[in-house]
Amino acid sequence: MATRVKVAVLVGSLRKESFNRKLAMAMIAMGVDPLELGIVEYRQLPPYNQDDEANPPQTIVEFKQRIAAADAVLFVTPEYNRSMPGALKNAIDAASRPYGKSAWDGKPGAVISVSLGALGAFGANHHLRQSMVFLNVSMMPQPEAYISNSKTLFDDNGALVNDATRAFLQKFLQAFAAWIARNPAR
Amino acid sequence: MATRVKVAVLVGSLRKESFNRKLAMAMIAMGVDPLELGIVEYRQLPPYNQDDEANPPQTIVEFKQRIAAADAVLFVTPEYNRSMPGALKNAIDAASRPYGKSAWDGKPGAVISVSLGALGAFGANHHLRQSMVFLNVSMMPQPEAYISNSKTLFDDNGALVNDATRAFLQKFLQAFAAWIARNPAR
Repeated sequence: MATRVKVAVLVGSLRKESFNRKLAMAMIAMGVDPLELGIVEYRQLPPYNQDDEANPPQTIVEFKQRIAAADAVLFVTPEYNRSMPGALKNAIDAASRPYGKSAWDGKPGAVISVSLGALGAFGANHHLRQSMVFLNVSMMPQPEAYISNSKTLFDDNGALVNDATRAFLQKFLQAFAAWIARNPAR
Repeated sequence: MATRVKVAVLVGSLRKESFNRKLAMAMIAMGVDPLELGIVEYRQLPPYNQDDEANPPQTIVEFKQRIAAADAVLFVTPEYNRSMPGALKNAIDAASRPYGKSAWDGKPGAVISVSLGALGAFGANHHLRQSMVFLNVSMMPQPEAYISNSKTLFDDNGALVNDATRAFLQKFLQAFAAWIARNPAR
């Protein structure tokens, strides 16, 4: 059996019935070998403040440890005002500091953006990629993942019922596994 | 005397000795007529969560009221990981919701981005502009304001001592006053 590859999944929406979370849960259930996906929560983090770096809040210390322990990172995010959700960006900022001690550095990554409408949260997807360039996260280029009309993909129990989306996500995760193998964390 | 124009200033860095805050304070002290600049704090806001919209936290209600009461908005921001600081973006998100009840809608705005290095926080400046397009904030195009080498602009007491920067900020605020007059909040 291949070595398990731990993927930290960051879900960009905090609401309980989030379609992003449901999509993440569906991917976790798929069990694409050798990926081991697990959601890392960040809602407990305070707004990043450089003054706290000398004596960081325990929530930030623990969040950074969870990111650092992962072999790869996967963002599943909606778009807020044509960019990343601020709370998600704040988590990215918090784990990137202090300077030279970023938890993201050198990891492979991927992003799936999700919208209720037709545009697939393109704005969030690419703003996030711009930050990942600076953070030295090797983001998988293809397949790109812009999931639109998210409301139509799930049944009333939150189960993913769209077969084309399911097949796409399976393909996406297989490609991500190959990407991680070529670009391991270092 | 002309009617006073209330400008809500949002400072993108939360640290006490923030150069962004010092720059904002210097502009407040300039007293460019008819602008009345005042910093609106947002560090007290929780991470935006749509589930809270039915019964929003008092901090968000009050923040939205302060933005809604302003005639214009001015962002003074550093760049974090080639984008806006997450905490600032979270404040933008919080005041933009619920859908159809945004506090930003129809206001004139401007942005000054500030960096320790040479690049002037270009990435933050333009990511922020992209969000403002969606939020229907009429952002002043020129003069653009990319303030670099911020550490060299202030003395040990936090006073702005660079004359060229002072003259530029004065010109910037005069242009912003004219922009607001042509594009009043509506």
